[in-house]
Formats: sequence, structure tokens, C-alpha cells
Amino acid sequence: MRKEILMIPGPTPVPPEVVAAMAKPMIGHRSDEFSSLFRRIHGYLQKVFRTEQDVLTFPAAGTGAMEAVLVNLFSPGHRILVAQTGEFGFRFGKMARAFGLDVTVVKFEPGEGLDPDRMIQCLEEGGGNHYQGVLVTHNETSTGVCNDLQNLGHWCRQHHTLMVVDAVSSLGALPLKMDEWGLDAVVSASQKALMTPPGLAFAALSPRAWERSKEAALPRVYWDFAAARASLHKGQTPYTPAISLLFGLEQALEMILSEGLESRWEHHRVGGKAMRAGIASLGLSMVARPQDASDTVTAIWIPEPHDANGVQEQMAIEYGVSVAGGQGNLAGKIIRIGHMGYTSWDDIRTTIYALESVLGGRPSKEQKACRAVDQVLKDKGVMDR
Amino acid sequence: MRKEILMIPGPTPVPPEVVAAMAKPMIGHRSDEFSSLFRRIHGYLQKVFRTEQDVLTFPAAGTGAMEAVLVNLFSPGHRILVAQTGEFGFRFGKMARAFGLDVTVVKFEPGEGLDPDRMIQCLEEGGGNHYQGVLVTHNETSTGVCNDLQNLGHWCRQHHTLMVVDAVSSLGALPLKMDEWGLDAVVSASQKALMTPPGLAFAALSPRAWERSKEAALPRVYWDFAAARASLHKGQTPYTPAISLLFGLEQALEMILSEGLESRWEHHRVGGKAMRAGIASLGLSMVARPQDASDTVTAIWIPEPHDANGVQEQMAIEYGVSVAGGQGNLAGKIIRIGHMGYTSWDDIRTTIYALESVLGGRPSKEQKACRAVDQVLKDKGVMDR
Repeated sequence: MRKEILMIPGPTPVPPEVVAAMAKPMIGHRSDEFSSLFRRIHGYLQKVFRTEQDVLTFPAAGTGAMEAVLVNLFSPGHRILVAQTGEFGFRFGKMARAFGLDVTVVKFEPGEGLDPDRMIQCLEEGGGNHYQGVLVTHNETSTGVCNDLQNLGHWCRQHHTLMVVDAVSSLGALPLKMDEWGLDAVVSASQKALMTPPGLAFAALSPRAWERSKEAALPRVYWDFAAARASLHKGQTPYTPAISLLFGLEQALEMILSEGLESRWEHHRVGGKAMRAGIASLGLSMVARPQDASDTVTAIWIPEPHDANGVQEQMAIEYGVSVAGGQGNLAGKIIRIGHMGYTSWDDIRTTIYALESVLGGRPSKEQKACRAVDQVLKDKGVMDR
Repeated sequence: MRKEILMIPGPTPVPPEVVAAMAKPMIGHRSDEFSSLFRRIHGYLQKVFRTEQDVLTFPAAGTGAMEAVLVNLFSPGHRILVAQTGEFGFRFGKMARAFGLDVTVVKFEPGEGLDPDRMIQCLEEGGGNHYQGVLVTHNETSTGVCNDLQNLGHWCRQHHTLMVVDAVSSLGALPLKMDEWGLDAVVSASQKALMTPPGLAFAALSPRAWERSKEAALPRVYWDFAAARASLHKGQTPYTPAISLLFGLEQALEMILSEGLESRWEHHRVGGKAMRAGIASLGLSMVARPQDASDTVTAIWIPEPHDANGVQEQMAIEYGVSVAGGQGNLAGKIIRIGHMGYTSWDDIRTTIYALESVLGGRPSKEQKACRAVDQVLKDKGVMDR
């Protein structure tokens, strides 16, 4: 047994209060008790999405909600512009292509956030109404980049193009104001900043996206938003909901909202800054450009002679700190640290400490003290937990 | 506070051991720990499905797995025969139509199980290879009917037609032998006899169904079986799995398999018989014909002057026993009692007792004793829990 620290970009640690809530006795999903629960959660979700629109909940991974948005909003042949700032943008585009959409990708370098001017230029090349939709990843988990949504959202609102946002690893941690920013579709999931185990996915549409969904020709049953909305208005879901996860989600959302959503944004802003300060003090480079750095995920280049996978493994084995490796081309070159949801300053400090120790960096003043403690533990032979 | 008895046709009560397992600390889904868990669960699922084929797991409701099977096996225009023995058969056919399949429905009366001869006659009218698939609900939850799979399975195995089975409310409770019976696709979910909260859906394919899936032209990403299988072989899932539910599922499957699957089948056989004996002793009629009666769900006609919804409500309010009402045309006319998964003889006895009491039937010998106890509680004013 040992206490592990989960610092991956999701799933994230679940607070004990949320774990306890999930232990409630099972209830029927056609009961008044369920309807009350589902309505309360819906009100909370609207606050977290910063929207007055309906927020739909599906038993699914976040990818499910991304697929759901595509099949509810578009028809084969529709022209879609995708901002690809990393692996998740790439997947979003690939998925759209699988459903017969006519996808154009605007590719940014790894670590570079999307350039709204370049995106808008592409959108305007077609005469302003050429594209039916633009797909954007709010927080690119593969490179630790946070993308600007406001400028694109503003442009889309004045044109025919629907702005679709993957907010899986940002919602609840990074500022996102669906209605104010004019976002047409926002999808997210339970297992990132919402501090709930994976298995719930969310989607919300703007009024004009709801209008557009009436003409969308792709077949859909499980993902049908109209059916989900009709059920939601009765406090229900079309199919059996993931009730224990909803018990947990209610508790998590109450914790988030009783602290205040803006306070949570600030918590992540400070946490991101602290993480980057630690990385800088170790002389390491981030994958993200400083101006694009995400406050929920930090991707770090691991310099030679170290091997990123080895560093990841050693942090886990020796210090009980789990971080993630790189995806695609970045595999073996970077590590990715998640610092969202139920993550404290102590967790961030411990992660930096573990990373410094594994890299064999020069101990800083604080580290010396920590290391004196470690030395005792090592001498006692209890270090290898 | 009061102790409730959940006797609906799903979700079903979750054993405390399963609840406790779900409280385990969150882990990353790309970790060795997850892969080991997922492989163990996979081995258990194969035993429960009675198959040597891969069993795929999705974060989804059972309906999701039904949709998944359709989009992985068929192409628009494919001819599909549906055995409609109730609401769930109806939905399966409706879903197939939504995906552009050419659906023919064989409708059976409410309470009537499918007649294999009639089904086979329909299948043979087209010359034997006319239909690409036949969709069958193993256990029709809306009417409490268990359908024969063996005869149809045998026929399908000798023809081109794929036999697709919705085993959502049967798997783990009613005998089902996927490989031995020649079933081509079996889908199920966590929240019925598998004693785990809702949110996990399963699908398994026969080798020839896997072959056929290569030609299936419907678009799919989230539901793509080939991707799920490739990941499974690496102990992973393509997208974030519902980890806490998998912790629970592992525990539930260990409980089922350590008792023995056949012992679980026997448990449900006895439970079904006990339930029907109780119903008969109250002079009530089942919706299902006796020869088709399900051992996991019993649907009962509520005679006038009683109102089925009133009976359902009174059982819940006065006795804390939750049963379900009728769906579609049967709403207000029947109640449905689920007796699967984590359900004991005591739960069945209490349910019959509550039903008898609500209907004001003549107390039997045992009831007299129970009622004497109740009288004390009523006198003390503690009956209205």
C-alpha cells in the first residue's frame, strides 16, 4: 500500500465526498427522486457551462459527445474547418471525415496555440459562409496548449459557421463562457476538472445550433439531441442514465459551485503558474509557447540524456507520482502533467520535487530540507514504497 | 430514512461489495494497473457470455451497444427481420430503420414469446439468404417474456443471416450460451443481472460477424468494433473507460463466477417460480403466457377497480417496495417486477406481501403473522416510514 498522486491529464483524482456520494443506494431512473437529482445537476451544469441553454448528459466518454455533436449538427458533404493544435484536434478532424464531412485542417505547430487571424482568414477565403462549422479544441491535452475561443466565437456569431468546441479538459478549470462568447456547441466530460470518474459526457447547443440540427441528415438514435432534450424537460433521459456517476457529479458540482466557478478558474490559474515556475527553475522547456500555456496540463520536453518514458516510470515507481507520456510524434520525448480538478499546491510541489529528483537536478533550498527527510527514509530502507 | 427495496427491471440493487470496490482511488487508463484490471474483467465477461470471442466494453447505456452492433454489422438497405415481442423489440426495429436498414417486423401479441417456426418461415420466404440479419430480444422487459434463441440460432448458423441478440436483461441470470447456440452478436449492460450500476455496455461478435463487419458501410468512430478490439488486445480502450464502474464490475463478476454462473441461473429460475407462485396465489394474471414467462421480470395485469399506477405508488409509499409500471399501450394496466441480480427470496416475499396488502387480498397464513407485526408498528405510528 502507498499513497499515490495522480497527475495525469485525466481521469483526475476523485474527492472522498464524491466517492461517498456514489455509494448511495441505486434508484430507478423513472422515479421522482431521479428527476429531482437530474434537474439539480442540470441547473449546476448550466452554471458551469455559463449558458442558459439545455445541457445534455450521456453515459459515454468525451469522444462520444464529440461524435454526438457532429451527427446532430451536420450532413455528409458539409464543409468543416478544423483547428489542429495537437492530437485531439487531429482526432476531431478524423472523426468528422469518417462521417462524410468535407474537412479542411488548419495545422499549427506542436505547442503553438491557434491563431484566430489565420483561422478567420481561412474562413473568409470561402466568402464568409463557405464553412458550415469550425471545430476547435479549447484545451489541447496533448501539448498543454489553451486555445483562444473568443475571437473565433465572435466571428462565427456574425456568419453562418457553427463554432464547435471540445472543452473536455477545460470545463470547470479554465474560463469558458458559452453564451457570452457565442459558442454554438460545447462538449465536455466528467473525468477532468469536474472531479468525477469517467463515464459521463455533456453537450450544449446554442439556439441557432438547435435550429440547424433539424436539417442535419446523419442518422442518430443513441446520440439524438432532440430526444435527449425532450426527456430532459421531463427530468429524464431517453435511455438508462449512469446513476451512480450522477450521484457523484452532483456532489462534485456542488463543491465547485459552493467555492464559486471563478474561484476555481483562479485556483487553476495559480496552479498552472506554480507548475510553470517549477519547470522553469529546473531549466526545462515547455512544449507550449508561454503565451499559449494551459493552466490544466503542462507538457515538458525531457532533455537528453534522459528518456521521457524512463522519467515517467521512475516518477511513478520511486515517488508514486503518475504523469503521462507523449502521444503520436511526441511519444518518448515529453511528459505531460495534469493539474486540474481535485489537485492541491502540495500535489504540484510534490510533482516538481519528484521530477527534479529523478532528473538529478541541483537541489534548491527547499529541496535540501525535503531531501534530508528522504535520506532518513532511504537509510531506513523504506524509500522504495 | 428508510430501507428501500428496489424491484424494478433495472437498474438493480448494487451489492455493498461492489459499492466498496467502486470507491478505489482513480487510476490512469494507460497504466499497467488498468490493463491488468481490464484483462481480468474480459476473461470474466467471456465466461458470462459463454464465448471464446472478444467481448467489447463501452461507456454507454445498453441502447448504445445495440446501436453499435447495427452500425458495425450492416449497411444501408440491408434486409433485417425483427422479432417484436414488446417495447424493446419495437425499439430495436425502429433504431435499425433510423440507420437506413430495410426492416421487416414480425409482431407477437403482448405476453407471447417469439415463435421460432413463424420466424424461420419468414426467414425462408426470401429463399433462406434474403435477410442479412435477424434481431431478437432475449428477455423482453416490457412484458416479462423470455424468448427462445436456440432454434433461431441453429437456423441462422446454417444460413447467411446474422443472429443479433439483445441480452440486456438476461445475461448473468438466464441461460445464454453464445458460442454453443450460434449467436452472431450479443449485447448487454451492467445494470441488470450483473449487479453493477448503469453506464457500461457490452458487445460480442461471432467470427463470421467479425468478417461481415469489414463490409459494413455505416460510419462509426465511437462505436467502431475494430478499434475497440485492437485496443482490447493491448489491455486498453480507444477512449477513456468508465474506470470506477469497471472496479465495481470486476467485483460483481467475481461474486457471480465464484458462486458459479449455472448456480446464478438456478437462483433466478427459483426466484421466478416463487414470484409466479405468489402472483397466482393472489389470483392475479401475468402478461406473459406461462410457457414464455421470464425468470428476471414479471409483468402482472392489475384488475379493476385497482389502478396499476396507484398500486405501484402505494407499494412504494407504504412499503418502500419500488416496482415499475407499464410502457406504451400497457401503461396504467400492468405493474412490472424485476427480480434479477442482487435479489433475495426475502425481497420477493416482501414484494408479494406488499402487493397483497395494497390490493387488500385475503391474508394467507403467513401474511397473518406478518400483519400482526405490522399491526404493532401501525399502532405505534411507525408504519408510515
